[in-house]
Amino acid sequence: MITRLSELFVRTLREDPADAEVASHRLLVRAGYIRRAAPGIYSWLPLGLSVLRKVEQIVREEMAAIGSQEVSFPALLPREPYEATHRWTEYGPNLFRLQDRKGGDYLLGPTHEEMFALLVKDLYTSYKDLPLSLFQIQTKYRDEARPRAGLLRGREFVMKDSYSFDIDEAGLQKSYDAHRDAYVKIFDRLGLEYVIVKAQSGAMGGSDSEEFLAVSPVGEDTYVRSPGGYAANVEAVTTLAPEPLAFDDAPAAHVEDTPDSATIETLVAVANQRVPRSDRPWQAGDTLKNVLFRLTHADGTTEDLAVGLPGDRAVDDKRLEAVLGESVQVAPFEEADFARHSSLVKGYIGPAVLGEDSATGIRYLVDPRVVTGSRWVTGADQEGRHVFDLVAGRDFVPDGTIEVAEVREGDPAPDGSGPLELARGMEMGHIFQLGRKYAEALGLKVLDENGKLVTVTMGSYGIGVSRAVAAVAETTCDDKGLCWPAALAPYQVHVVVAGKGEEQLLKATEIAQSLSDKGIDVLLDDRKASPGVKFADAELLGMPTVVVVGKGLADGVVEVRDRRTGEREDVAVEQVVDQLSG
Amino acid sequence: MITRLSELFVRTLREDPADAEVASHRLLVRAGYIRRAAPGIYSWLPLGLSVLRKVEQIVREEMAAIGSQEVSFPALLPREPYEATHRWTEYGPNLFRLQDRKGGDYLLGPTHEEMFALLVKDLYTSYKDLPLSLFQIQTKYRDEARPRAGLLRGREFVMKDSYSFDIDEAGLQKSYDAHRDAYVKIFDRLGLEYVIVKAQSGAMGGSDSEEFLAVSPVGEDTYVRSPGGYAANVEAVTTLAPEPLAFDDAPAAHVEDTPDSATIETLVAVANQRVPRSDRPWQAGDTLKNVLFRLTHADGTTEDLAVGLPGDRAVDDKRLEAVLGESVQVAPFEEADFARHSSLVKGYIGPAVLGEDSATGIRYLVDPRVVTGSRWVTGADQEGRHVFDLVAGRDFVPDGTIEVAEVREGDPAPDGSGPLELARGMEMGHIFQLGRKYAEALGLKVLDENGKLVTVTMGSYGIGVSRAVAAVAETTCDDKGLCWPAALAPYQVHVVVAGKGEEQLLKATEIAQSLSDKGIDVLLDDRKASPGVKFADAELLGMPTVVVVGKGLADGVVEVRDRRTGEREDVAVEQVVDQLSG
Repeated sequence: MITRLSELFVRTLREDPADAEVASHRLLVRAGYIRRAAPGIYSWLPLGLSVLRKVEQIVREEMAAIGSQEVSFPALLPREPYEATHRWTEYGPNLFRLQDRKGGDYLLGPTHEEMFALLVKDLYTSYKDLPLSLFQIQTKYRDEARPRAGLLRGREFVMKDSYSFDIDEAGLQKSYDAHRDAYVKIFDRLGLEYVIVKAQSGAMGGSDSEEFLAVSPVGEDTYVRSPGGYAANVEAVTTLAPEPLAFDDAPAAHVEDTPDSATIETLVAVANQRVPRSDRPWQAGDTLKNVLFRLTHADGTTEDLAVGLPGDRAVDDKRLEAVLGESVQVAPFEEADFARHSSLVKGYIGPAVLGEDSATGIRYLVDPRVVTGSRWVTGADQEGRHVFDLVAGRDFVPDGTIEVAEVREGDPAPDGSGPLELARGMEMGHIFQLGRKYAEALGLKVLDENGKLVTVTMGSYGIGVSRAVAAVAETTCDDKGLCWPAALAPYQVHVVVAGKGEEQLLKATEIAQSLSDKGIDVLLDDRKASPGVKFADAELLGMPTVVVVGKGLADGVVEVRDRRTGEREDVAVEQVVDQLSG
Repeated sequence: MITRLSELFVRTLREDPADAEVASHRLLVRAGYIRRAAPGIYSWLPLGLSVLRKVEQIVREEMAAIGSQEVSFPALLPREPYEATHRWTEYGPNLFRLQDRKGGDYLLGPTHEEMFALLVKDLYTSYKDLPLSLFQIQTKYRDEARPRAGLLRGREFVMKDSYSFDIDEAGLQKSYDAHRDAYVKIFDRLGLEYVIVKAQSGAMGGSDSEEFLAVSPVGEDTYVRSPGGYAANVEAVTTLAPEPLAFDDAPAAHVEDTPDSATIETLVAVANQRVPRSDRPWQAGDTLKNVLFRLTHADGTTEDLAVGLPGDRAVDDKRLEAVLGESVQVAPFEEADFARHSSLVKGYIGPAVLGEDSATGIRYLVDPRVVTGSRWVTGADQEGRHVFDLVAGRDFVPDGTIEVAEVREGDPAPDGSGPLELARGMEMGHIFQLGRKYAEALGLKVLDENGKLVTVTMGSYGIGVSRAVAAVAETTCDDKGLCWPAALAPYQVHVVVAGKGEEQLLKATEIAQSLSDKGIDVLLDDRKASPGVKFADAELLGMPTVVVVGKGLADGVVEVRDRRTGEREDVAVEQVVDQLSG
C-alpha cells in the first residue's frame, strides 16, 4: 500500500502543544497522530489510528493464543450491578455517572468485572463449562482529577480487559499464569522495556497481583528492585520489620522539658543539648512521629487516623491511598480537627492520647518498624515536653500496623534479597487474582462435580492499549521526533522525493510501487516542499526506514537512512527494493 | 481456524426473550450472538462480534476505495461545539448529557459533524487541501424514547459516519456521488435487498439527501415507489397539488345548520341529508378538516398550530415530526388548550378563526391540495353549523402550506411517474449534502485560488453498522433460525458429529482440519449431545453449510446440508473437503 503524503490527512506542527509535559504527548500531537478533543480526551488521526490498530492486533493475537475469547460490552452501563459490588459508590468522583431520559442511573464503564460476571452467570451453570477466559478491547472511561501526559493518563482510553473464571484456586493460578505469559509476549512484541512488579491490589479487592511497568523516568509509578530479584510497585513494598526486642532492662519512661521542639529537626537538636545520650547523638530515627489524618469515606462518614512512624521517614501519600483504597479521601489534620480533641497538643502528640481506647479514641496505627521493645522519644502531650525511653508493647500498644512510610533507596527488600533500588515506570498491564469477591456479590455460582453450588473464582487482567501507543512513543523517541519499531510503524518505509526534477518523482514512485508490490506499506512524500522540510518531517513522523530520492539519482543511487541509528547509506537504485524487502 | 462448540462461549436458548418483537432480535439472542445489558444496550458475544467485524471490514474496504481516510473520535464530547451549532439544545431528550467532576458539560456523541469540522479547521487552510473525505467506525449514543427490536433501534450502537469537505457545490456533488456508489457496493456485499429513497433532512439542516432502506415488513420506515422510478421516504414525499381553479362563477359561501356533525363521518351524513349536492353525494374529501396542535420548542417556548387538510386524510405523525424537526415536541390540543381560545368551537372549527391575522392568532397551514379556488365544507365556528362553498383564496387565505397529510397507496408520484405503492424498510444508510450550515457555525473556511476565505461545504454520510447485523439477520432468517450469507457468517462450515462413536469424532475433526488448512473457518460441534439437539442448534446458529458426520460414515459418506435451501446431499468422505473448498 502506498500513501501519498500530499493526500494524507496530517499536518506536522512546529510548535509544541502548550499542555504537553512529556515527549510522547508533544510528538504525537506535533506529528499529527492524535489531537486533543477535551482534557484527557483525544481524537485519533490516520497515523495514530494505524499504530493503535497494530497494538490492538498484537494484543488480540496473544489473547487468542491462550484461548481467551473476544466479546464486546457496552461502555454505557446500568447502575445496578455496580451497586451490588459497591463500586458505584467506591469509585467516588472517578466514575462518570449520568441519567437517561427516564431518570435511570448509568455509568461509563471503567472496567467490566460486574458485566462479565453477570454474563457468565447468565450462560453457564456447571464446572464442566470452566475454565473460561473472555476478553474485550474497548473504550473505557475514568474521570481523572488530573488528566495528564496525553494518552498516558486520559479520561477516555482503549483497554484490553479480560477475565478468567475457574472452579478453584488451582484453576485461577493456571489462568493467571497463562495471562502472565501472554503479557510477556505482548510487551516483548511491542518492544517495550518493562519490569513485572508485585502490585498493591488497590480498590479491586482480592489477593495476588502483578503490574507490568514500562521503564521510563516520566512514569507515574515508582517501583523498587533488589539485586536478588525482588520487584514491587512502591505501594506494594512491605517493610522488613526488625525482631521484637527484649525490654526487661529498659529504663522507665521519663518526661523531659524540650522547649521549642515541635519539629523532628528541632527535637533532635534540643534532645542532644538537654538529654544527651551516652553512646551517640540522638537521631531523627530515634523519635516516634505521630501524624494525624482526616478520612472521608465514600458514604460521607468521616474518621480520624493517627499514624506513628520513625521521625526520619515521611508518610508516602500514594502508599497511604493504596492502603486506604481509592474510595477514601484523605486530608491532613487542620486547626478545626485539632480543636475537636483538647488532649492533642500540636507538635507534642504522643501515644498516650492515641488509640481506640485512649481519651481521643483515634485509631492509632504504626509503622512495622515500631516493634515490641523498641524505645522512642516522642511527644508527652504537653507543650515543650517529650517522653524518652518510651517502650512499645510496655508503655503503649498501638491498634495495629500500617505500611505507609516512604520507601527509600537502600531499604532492605522484604524477602532478604538485598538493598532496594528505586526507579520509575508507566503501568502498562495489571494481572490480578480477583478471587470470589465479585462472584459472591453477584451470585455467580456453578454446580461442582457433586452437584453442589460453588462460587466461581475470577481473575481480572488489563492492558492499556492506547497508553501503550504513548509508552512506545515515549521510550523510543529522540530529540528529532518519533521513532517507531517496525511492528508498530504506520509505514515501514518513508520515501522522500528530494528534488524538483520530474525524474526524482517518477523514480521515487516506481520504488514505492515495487516495495508496495512486495507487501511493504510505503509513505511517499510527493509534496511540493523543500528537502529540508521533508527530512525534518520524516524524522518527526518516525518511520523506521527513510529512502531519499534526490541528487544521487544522477549517479544511480538513492540514500537509505535508518531512523533509529541515523545511519545513512547510498544504495544503487536497482538494488534498493531488494535490500529493503529482503 | 477451527472452533469447538464445546469450548465456544455460547449457549442457545429454547425460549424467546420476553421483550423481542422481531425475528432478528429473537434469534440473535436465542442463538447467543448478543445479550441485553440494559434497554437498547447490548453486549456482543463471540459469534455476534464476528459478524459485526465482518460488516465493519466491508464498510472499511469500500470507504478506503473511494479515498476516505479513517480516523477515530471520542464518544465523550465537550458541549461547546454542539452549543455552537445549537444541537446541544435541538437534540432534546435524545442526547445523553453528563457532567464531569468539575461540572463541565459533556455529551455522548450521536454524530460527529461538529468534531470533524473543527478538526479540519484545525489542520487545513487552503483549497489545495480539498477535497477531503474522512470516516470513522465508532460507538454512538442516542437516548431513544422507545428502544426496540434489539439492534435495530438501540441506544448504544456502532455507526460508520463519514464527512466530505469541498470548496464548492460541484465538489460536494462529486463527493456525494462517490459515497452513493460506495454505499451501493457495501449493501450489495452485505446481501441486503434495499431501495434508495429521497429523504427528509430532519434536524440536520441542509439540502439533498437519500436513504438506503433494507426492504422489510418490520421496518420502521415507510417509503413509496412509483412504476416510473420515483422512490422516497414517506416523510419526503411531496404532494402533487392540483392547478388553482377558477372561482369566478362559484356561489357565495353559505352557513347551514348541521346538528351533531362534529366528526367528518357525521358531517358527510348530515350534509347529504340536509344540504344535498346535485351532481353526487358529499364525500369526506369535500370537507376541510382543521386539526390543532400544541408545539413545545427545545427552548421551552410553546406555540399553537392549525393544520387544514381534506377530511378524508389524517395527519401523519411522522411527516409532521419530520417537517417540524425533532427538537419540537408535538401534542394534540387538549381541553385546556381549547379553553385558551374562546372562538374555537370544538368539532366546528373553520378558517375564519384561524391564521396569524385572525382572532386566535393561531398559525394556519394547509395541505397543498387546498389550492386557490378549491371549494370546501368546513366549520362555521358555531356549535352544529358548517359553512358550504367556502373558496380558498377568496373566502380565506391560509398562512402557508404544510406536507403532513398521510400518503396513500395510489396517490400520484410528485414527478408524474405514476401511482405510488407503499412499503416498509429499515434505514441502513443515509447520505446527505449538508452544505455550509456546520462549517459556518464553526468557522471552517479555507483560502480559495484568489486568496479569499470561503466557507467549506460538507457532506455527511452514515451507515448503521450494528443495525446492519440485525437487518441481515432479519431478512435472511427463517422459522428455524439464522441463515447468514457467506460474507458475514462467523464460520463457513458447521461440522456436526452425529453419533457416539469415536470414529465419527475422529473423522469430523479430520474433515474440519482439512477445511481449516484450506483457509475455511469451521465450527465443530463436538459436544456430548443428541444429534437432534445438534441439528436444531446448527439451524439456529445459521452457518451456510452444515456437514453431518454420522451413520453414513460406515458407507463412506457424510451429509452436506445447505442451510438456506435445506438441500441435503450425501458426499463421499474423501471428496467433501474438495467440494466445499472448491
